[in-house]
Amino acid sequence: MSQNSFNTSLRVTWVDTDAAGVVHCSNYFRFFERAEEEFYRHIGFDFTNFKERGLWFPRVEAFCQYKKPAMYSDLLVIEVSVEELKEKSVKLGFKVVNAENRDLLAVGHLVIVAADKQTGRAARIPVDIVDKLKPFAKQIL
Amino acid sequence: MSQNSFNTSLRVTWVDTDAAGVVHCSNYFRFFERAEEEFYRHIGFDFTNFKERGLWFPRVEAFCQYKKPAMYSDLLVIEVSVEELKEKSVKLGFKVVNAENRDLLAVGHLVIVAADKQTGRAARIPVDIVDKLKPFAKQIL
Amino acid sequence: MSQNSFNTSLRVTWVDTDAAGVVHCSNYFRFFERAEEEFYRHIGFDFTNFKERGLWFPRVEAFCQYKKPAMYSDLLVIEVSVEELKEKSVKLGFKVVNAENRDLLAVGHLVIVAADKQTGRAARIPVDIVDKLKPFAKQIL
Amino acid sequence: MSQNSFNTSLRVTWVDTDAAGVVHCSNYFRFFERAEEEFYRHIGFDFTNFKERGLWFPRVEAFCQYKKPAMYSDLLVIEVSVEELKEKSVKLGFKVVNAENRDLLAVGHLVIVAADKQTGRAARIPVDIVDKLKPFAKQIL
Repeated sequence: MSQNSFNTSLRVTWVDTDAAGVVHCSNYFRFFERAEEEFYRHIGFDFTNFKERGLWFPRVEAFCQYKKPAMYSDLLVIEVSVEELKEKSVKLGFKVVNAENRDLLAVGHLVIVAADKQTGRAARIPVDIVDKLKPFAKQIL
Repeated sequence: MSQNSFNTSLRVTWVDTDAAGVVHCSNYFRFFERAEEEFYRHIGFDFTNFKERGLWFPRVEAFCQYKKPAMYSDLLVIEVSVEELKEKSVKLGFKVVNAENRDLLAVGHLVIVAADKQTGRAARIPVDIVDKLKPFAKQIL
Repeated sequence: MSQNSFNTSLRVTWVDTDAAGVVHCSNYFRFFERAEEEFYRHIGFDFTNFKERGLWFPRVEAFCQYKKPAMYSDLLVIEVSVEELKEKSVKLGFKVVNAENRDLLAVGHLVIVAADKQTGRAARIPVDIVDKLKPFAKQIL
Repeated sequence: MSQNSFNTSLRVTWVDTDAAGVVHCSNYFRFFERAEEEFYRHIGFDFTNFKERGLWFPRVEAFCQYKKPAMYSDLLVIEVSVEELKEKSVKLGFKVVNAENRDLLAVGHLVIVAADKQTGRAARIPVDIVDKLKPFAKQIL
């Protein structure tokens, strides 16, 4: 996997699956976010701290391509990369791999914007967060 | 179904199911709550209005017995009844029935308490809400 | 909304929301699927019937752009359109609108492929399904 | 915590929370099951192996009492105990504790029955599974 990315793993639980016997498509976005949260924890960014400052970090775009299904009890590795770092938004890339056989199961991204909770308008990402994201950024725009 | 109860229906969606091909046990509690919300809408109780007054309505107990499985696309009827109405809490009873064949699928309850958001302590249910719940109450304690 | 599309509505329930007070991003994909299922019901396509023939309909791509947040109790209208109809796949487009103020909340799509359950390979969409989808298709490729 | 119990931990993720800012009540049942699955993994019981033998393990009862709320990012410890081991069913008890301050957040149980997938009737729990559960059982009935 690429340099300057962050890896975390999670285990597929029963409720993640659907009647087709595979992980439901919507749950990959939940897996992405769990990986995102672990990534933030890793770099020391706690977005709940910004609530008092009136900042939040809504998603403006979500995308996933599904390559192979994941099943109950599979151990998944999720790679997080910072695809683009902009003044007011960040695009995080995700790869989901089966930990046992290294099959690529899904790729996708989330675009997250810093926003003023009151006005709903996009805001600059605080400089201390930018500094923590920079070492992982493939592109700084 | 019993007098003074409220009925609503919902359709099982694909993501409600799990790899056993049936609705996942945790989703019955989500069905209960959807029925609870429709019941409140029916009697004119909007619990989000109480946020400003610092009141919220957390669950303190949840219970479900599963009788028969529900499948994708099944239409379910959910009956809500007010099992017990107390000064600070209400116990809502739920029955989940298959709309087509009238099979009883699940029975359960939720105990909901009025609570002060600041202190976390139980508080009296506002009198206007009590008045709206009373006609449905099997027991007033 | 556009001709040859299908509209359905759903109510935001409490569990759809997250600690930001808005519907969680992953749930839009669940809303898309509920609309997709209602659309299939409307045109008389029951995909569970194809299980015996060894066909299933996994998603290969999911996309959503979020415009404005949805809140608890909001009534949402979801418009489904058939963006592309191919031999082995269909791209469904979705628009999520607030029923009260007509605000556009989200747009997105799902790409669904017909697949042989045994081999996992893409298969032709059965002709009777194609016939049911055609009147809604913006592009037939 | 009690002897002969099994502990596992999990981190609260954003989607676990609701607009009250706390973990949604239904998610505790999902936490219970994740702990149950880790417990089975620990004792070497893979319930998916029994599919071929036509056995499955549906839940017939679920219960939870909520003591204190859990928030985003909280690390939770879940204790699993075998409350009752019967010929055809097992009652698993759960305690959810905040890992940092040791606050008890929730207690509950699941009753799981062995069942013949074809007939839906309760069946004996296979003897090899009984042997694995016995060392943890508080009561053998």
